[in-house]
Amino acid sequence: MSKPEHVVDAMIAACNRKDIDAVLACFAEDVHYHNIPMDPVSGHAGVRAMLEPFFKIASEVDWVVHKSVSNGLDTVMNERTDRFLMPDGWVDLPVMGVFEVNGGKITAWRDYFDMAPVVPLLNQL
Amino acid sequence: MSKPEHVVDAMIAACNRKDIDAVLACFAEDVHYHNIPMDPVSGHAGVRAMLEPFFKIASEVDWVVHKSVSNGLDTVMNERTDRFLMPDGWVDLPVMGVFEVNGGKITAWRDYFDMAPVVPLLNQL
Repeated sequence: MSKPEHVVDAMIAACNRKDIDAVLACFAEDVHYHNIPMDPVSGHAGVRAMLEPFFKIASEVDWVVHKSVSNGLDTVMNERTDRFLMPDGWVDLPVMGVFEVNGGKITAWRDYFDMAPVVPLLNQL
Repeated sequence: MSKPEHVVDAMIAACNRKDIDAVLACFAEDVHYHNIPMDPVSGHAGVRAMLEPFFKIASEVDWVVHKSVSNGLDTVMNERTDRFLMPDGWVDLPVMGVFEVNGGKITAWRDYFDMAPVVPLLNQL
């Protein structure tokens, strides 16, 4: 069984390749994904609907993990800068996330961030 | 030497008693404290200037830690709801924080949250 932090790191590496199938493979079918200032989504369809528009409009995705802590069992938290190369240049979003991992799959993901710098990005999707 | 998670939990317990001196005792003299959507502050004076106005206007402070993960050495991350009983009622702020702890004192604290629900609270200070 993969360590939970390896599952999370694999998911982020897949985001950085904009490989949505590899991203989804890291999630349980019934995952709950909540960008806290936005409405939660669930399931692979929910994760795809949230991430794929960013992968399509950003010519590069570079999520940088500054720190990551795991309890070694089922919980990983990380501090990141989620970077997107948009038509007008790089957008850097400071984020913290918590991931619940069970059976080698991410079952819950909650990201905490300020919405203000995200809005102009959403307006380009 | 206290475990890093105990130092963080003691700091939050002191916040919940609105005991600013006990709060400051958990921090290194040269602490860096950054509420990410706001300007960073530093030192005991910076922490006091940030927290004391909330302690004064909120009749109760109740920061609820939902999950906490430590690397056992120098880093603690937690997922919280920071609750303040304001004149108009409870305000609940979803937050994630990362704490760097060295020598039994918090040397860095960064909190990630959406600014929008904080603004009406700041306007009451």
